[in-house]
Amino acid sequence: MRDTYHEQLDDILAELERMTRTVSTAVRRSTTALLTADIRQAEEVIAADIQLDAAGEGVEEKVFELMARQAPVANELRMLVAALRMVADLERMGDLAAHVSKIARLRYPAPAIPDELKSVIEEMGSVAGRMVDGAGDVIKTRDVEAATKLETVDDEMDKLRTNQFRLMMDDSWPHGVEVAVDIALLGRYYERIADHAVSMARRVVYLVTGELPVAIGGTAAGSGAGASTPSPNGN
Amino acid sequence: MRDTYHEQLDDILAELERMTRTVSTAVRRSTTALLTADIRQAEEVIAADIQLDAAGEGVEEKVFELMARQAPVANELRMLVAALRMVADLERMGDLAAHVSKIARLRYPAPAIPDELKSVIEEMGSVAGRMVDGAGDVIKTRDVEAATKLETVDDEMDKLRTNQFRLMMDDSWPHGVEVAVDIALLGRYYERIADHAVSMARRVVYLVTGELPVAIGGTAAGSGAGASTPSPNGN
Repeated sequence: MRDTYHEQLDDILAELERMTRTVSTAVRRSTTALLTADIRQAEEVIAADIQLDAAGEGVEEKVFELMARQAPVANELRMLVAALRMVADLERMGDLAAHVSKIARLRYPAPAIPDELKSVIEEMGSVAGRMVDGAGDVIKTRDVEAATKLETVDDEMDKLRTNQFRLMMDDSWPHGVEVAVDIALLGRYYERIADHAVSMARRVVYLVTGELPVAIGGTAAGSGAGASTPSPNGN
Repeated sequence: MRDTYHEQLDDILAELERMTRTVSTAVRRSTTALLTADIRQAEEVIAADIQLDAAGEGVEEKVFELMARQAPVANELRMLVAALRMVADLERMGDLAAHVSKIARLRYPAPAIPDELKSVIEEMGSVAGRMVDGAGDVIKTRDVEAATKLETVDDEMDKLRTNQFRLMMDDSWPHGVEVAVDIALLGRYYERIADHAVSMARRVVYLVTGELPVAIGGTAAGSGAGASTPSPNGN
C-alpha cells in the first residue's frame, strides 16, 4: 500500500507537468490567434480552458484523498500542499491565456495588434510560453539550477513590459487609446503568466532544498511565491 | 488536546477575518491616495503589504502544523485546505491594493486621475472595499445568504468596468493614452480584488453546505473559485 501511495504522489507531479504543457500550448495558440486575427483558434483556446480546470479539479481530488487517507508525513504533506498551489497557478495561467484569446475575439475581424507592434507581443508570448515550459521542466527534473534560470527569463519579461510602456507613453504614439488599452492589458496577462511560472519553479526549489530562492519577497512574483510555500521556519 | 485543536481551527478563521479587515483598509486607503495624490498614504499601503504577507505566512504555518500533527478528519481537512486558499486570496488582494498605490506614486505629484474620472474610480474602490468587508463578514458569520449577496455586488463591479471601457473607447476621450492605460489597469486591479472576495465567500459556502454556489464555472471569478474548493464529488 505504501508503494501505491508513493506512486500516487508521483502521478500527481506527472499530472501537474502535463498541465503545464497544456497551458504552454494555450499561451502559444492565443498569441498566434491574436497576431493573425484567427478567431477559430481563439475560440478553441477559450473552450479548452474548461478542460484545464477539470484536470485541475482531478488533481485536487487526488491530493485531498491522499491527505485524508494516508496521514502523510511532513515532507509528503509539504509536497501535497505545494501541489494544490501549483494547480491554482496552472488554472490561473489558463484563464490568463484565455483572456489573451478574448481580446483577439473582441477585435475580430480586425486584427487587435497593429503591424508595428506585433514583434513586441510576439516576444512577450514567446517568453511566457518558454517560462511555462520551463516550469514544467523544473517539475519533471527538479533541477534547482533550471528554476533559478527561470528568474532570469522573467527579467526579460519585465524589460519587454517596460519597453511596451515607453512606446505607449511616447507623444508620437499613433495607435490611439483602444490599442493602448489592449496592449496594456495583454502585457499584464503575459506578465502574470510569467509570475505564476516563477512561483511554480520556486515551489519546486523549496520542496527539493527546503529553502526559498534568494530573490523572494519584494517583487510581485516573489510575494506570489511567498504565499505558496509554507514558511521555512514553519515546519 | 482535542479541544485545543478545535480552538486552533477557530483561531485560524479569526485570523483570516482579521486579514480581510487589513486588506479592506488597504483598498480604501489606496483609493484615497490615488484620488488625492497622497504620496504618504500610498507609501504606507505599499509598506504595510509586507505585514499582510507575514500574517499570511503565520496562518500557513498554523495550518500546516495542524495538518501534520492532528491527522484531521475530512471536514477539518477541507477547512484547512480552504484556509490555505483564502490566505493566498488575501495576500493577492493585498498585492493588488499596493498596485493601486503604486500608480498613485508613479504619477505623483500629479494626480493620476483627472477630476471627471474620480467618481468612477471612487465607486470602484468603494465596491471593492465593501466586497472585501463582505468576505470578512461571511467568514465570521458563515452566512450563506450574505455570500450569495456578494455575487450581486460583484455584478456592480462588472458594470463599472464596462462603463469605464465605454468612456475610454469614446472618440471624444480627452485624457490621452497615459490616463487610459492607468485607468484600464486600475480597473483590472479592482476587478481582481472583487473576484478574490467572491472566491473567498464561495469557499465558506462550500464549507458550510458542501455545495458550490450556482453561479460557478463560466466567469473569471467562477474559475477562480473552482480552483479554490475541492470538487464536490472529490471528497
